[in-house]
Amino acid sequence: MPPLPSELAYVPFVSVQHMMNLVHHLGIETVLRALADEIEADFKRWEMFDKTPRVASHSEVGVIELMPTSDGEMYGFKYVNGHPKNTREGLQTVTAFGLLADVNTGYPKLLSEMTLLTALRTAATSAMAARHLAPKDASTMAMIGNGAQSEFQCLAFKAICGIDTVRLYDTDPAATAKAARNLVGHGLDVIPCTSAEDCIEGAQMITTCTADKQNATILTDNMIGPGVHINAIGGDCPGKTELHRDILMRSSIFVEYPEQTWVEGEIQQLDRTHPITELWQVIAGHATGRTSPTQITLFDSVGFAIEDFSALRYVEGAIKGTEFFTMLDMLADPDDPRDLFGMLQRSTA
Amino acid sequence: MPPLPSELAYVPFVSVQHMMNLVHHLGIETVLRALADEIEADFKRWEMFDKTPRVASHSEVGVIELMPTSDGEMYGFKYVNGHPKNTREGLQTVTAFGLLADVNTGYPKLLSEMTLLTALRTAATSAMAARHLAPKDASTMAMIGNGAQSEFQCLAFKAICGIDTVRLYDTDPAATAKAARNLVGHGLDVIPCTSAEDCIEGAQMITTCTADKQNATILTDNMIGPGVHINAIGGDCPGKTELHRDILMRSSIFVEYPEQTWVEGEIQQLDRTHPITELWQVIAGHATGRTSPTQITLFDSVGFAIEDFSALRYVEGAIKGTEFFTMLDMLADPDDPRDLFGMLQRSTA
Repeated sequence: MPPLPSELAYVPFVSVQHMMNLVHHLGIETVLRALADEIEADFKRWEMFDKTPRVASHSEVGVIELMPTSDGEMYGFKYVNGHPKNTREGLQTVTAFGLLADVNTGYPKLLSEMTLLTALRTAATSAMAARHLAPKDASTMAMIGNGAQSEFQCLAFKAICGIDTVRLYDTDPAATAKAARNLVGHGLDVIPCTSAEDCIEGAQMITTCTADKQNATILTDNMIGPGVHINAIGGDCPGKTELHRDILMRSSIFVEYPEQTWVEGEIQQLDRTHPITELWQVIAGHATGRTSPTQITLFDSVGFAIEDFSALRYVEGAIKGTEFFTMLDMLADPDDPRDLFGMLQRSTA
Repeated sequence: MPPLPSELAYVPFVSVQHMMNLVHHLGIETVLRALADEIEADFKRWEMFDKTPRVASHSEVGVIELMPTSDGEMYGFKYVNGHPKNTREGLQTVTAFGLLADVNTGYPKLLSEMTLLTALRTAATSAMAARHLAPKDASTMAMIGNGAQSEFQCLAFKAICGIDTVRLYDTDPAATAKAARNLVGHGLDVIPCTSAEDCIEGAQMITTCTADKQNATILTDNMIGPGVHINAIGGDCPGKTELHRDILMRSSIFVEYPEQTWVEGEIQQLDRTHPITELWQVIAGHATGRTSPTQITLFDSVGFAIEDFSALRYVEGAIKGTEFFTMLDMLADPDDPRDLFGMLQRSTA
């Protein structure tokens, strides 16, 4: 038997099962609140991060992306795909995993599933943004698009913004029924609706999360009354939008990272001279969020690498002292760093 | 107990120990030859690949890079760091891992350690290039820089180019002694040398692989006689070169991906109008390699994503039917793809 690799050779790995166990152990609302706080804190120090648009590899049927960022101490990236047609084949539209590494040594420090974690961080980011942008007394959210992300959104808005009611709508009634069933027992009034118009009735906040890779119009201008906050998260690649352009023209628009949002977000539909505000500027106190009760605020969210970084940092801390990870023998660690070949040779035994 | 995740949720993982076992099982020279053939075949169909310079995150002490590529059917990327100062702290200068995914679904299909695999593919690429560029009767290689990559280079040139003698030199005699010791029993005449001048004596091929992050001059112009093939692999980031500019002026220069080599390779020292040849063009028959016995040929190699892609594809095939991998529960795979939340909820048990 060759000697066992040293501690340096191992990287903690959080599997899907570990992630589920961790969420149950801590409670999903606790996790969502902690993620929102972690993401908000990183948005506050936005300027410290290396920022770059995601590195996308497009094909006719989908996209595979790498989303790297660094705060100078830690480096993180996420691998994520987006394949809308997967659902029809019994596969996930989005799967993801991520990695944290130490900038000082380049050594990986955490490998984690991120399909679940992305769902959690996306919901936490949406609700964190709404905490800054939505009307203060908002108690009802319309949730349009009842796919894999919808229940996470509903619970994040409950845990972080204090809503008590969600109104659900999807073009497929089975999706609405699924979401309603899953939300039983979570302390929300859940109202399934049969049209988008019905769904937005009495809602101070509207979340759109639909998955078609095409310009769609989930919301039209006449549906949006004064004072509403719109959380548009379904448009996330070139050619994929959910809102009618007229709504954008009436809204104060907040984005994560303009370079990326101009290409992937709802604002694809606008001229690049159109005023937009970076969400981090609001959080850091450099820009104003909601300024009047009649203002329509729109968070045009496409997801950004810093949110994944925050989520991975959170997981790195949360698993300490738990059983919710295993150690992967992922790095070669010869006794003498110049003797990689010797390590290989001596392992023959 | 929650139901076990389906097959789709698992990704084959090749650990460092698995990779060592695989190499011993097949024999290192067999692996190097197979890698060279796989890389050569992919260079031949170079135009089919998505190519992009690596995505680098630089810090004061090193760099972390992502190197993605795709041939339209499979997507691959490598995570790799470069931290020259790590050696002084008992850590590897370079650690790496890589992933293959199915372009059609975006689902990962292989996760592998790539510290060892990068050493193997780098050596295989060097020797594959020499097969096209070096003098036909070359039997002796000078190996300058006897660090972690050196023994792999020596064996690749034996297995792929048929050399019988290597001459070793490093500024640190302990590194030379280590390499000489490791090469015992591999069928090579190994000659430790005490200077670079001594080392290149009688060598038809010269490999330079030193690790300082600075413009160095490992070889000066007067050291290089006619007909020699130089395999320069140590210069691989901005500001890091190994050869005197005058050598470049006398050489026919071959590179992997010009966009990257102009920034990272020896040709950083040249004007961008200087003629260079893409190696794939030689392999595909669109350009000539060596045209005379007195010509100095230089492979200015910085490593490219396609080489990692070829190596991962090779490993994917080679582990089939073996025990040299485990299955990682890395992807969430709910029964109903829209029911990620339900999967999480039902796992409470």
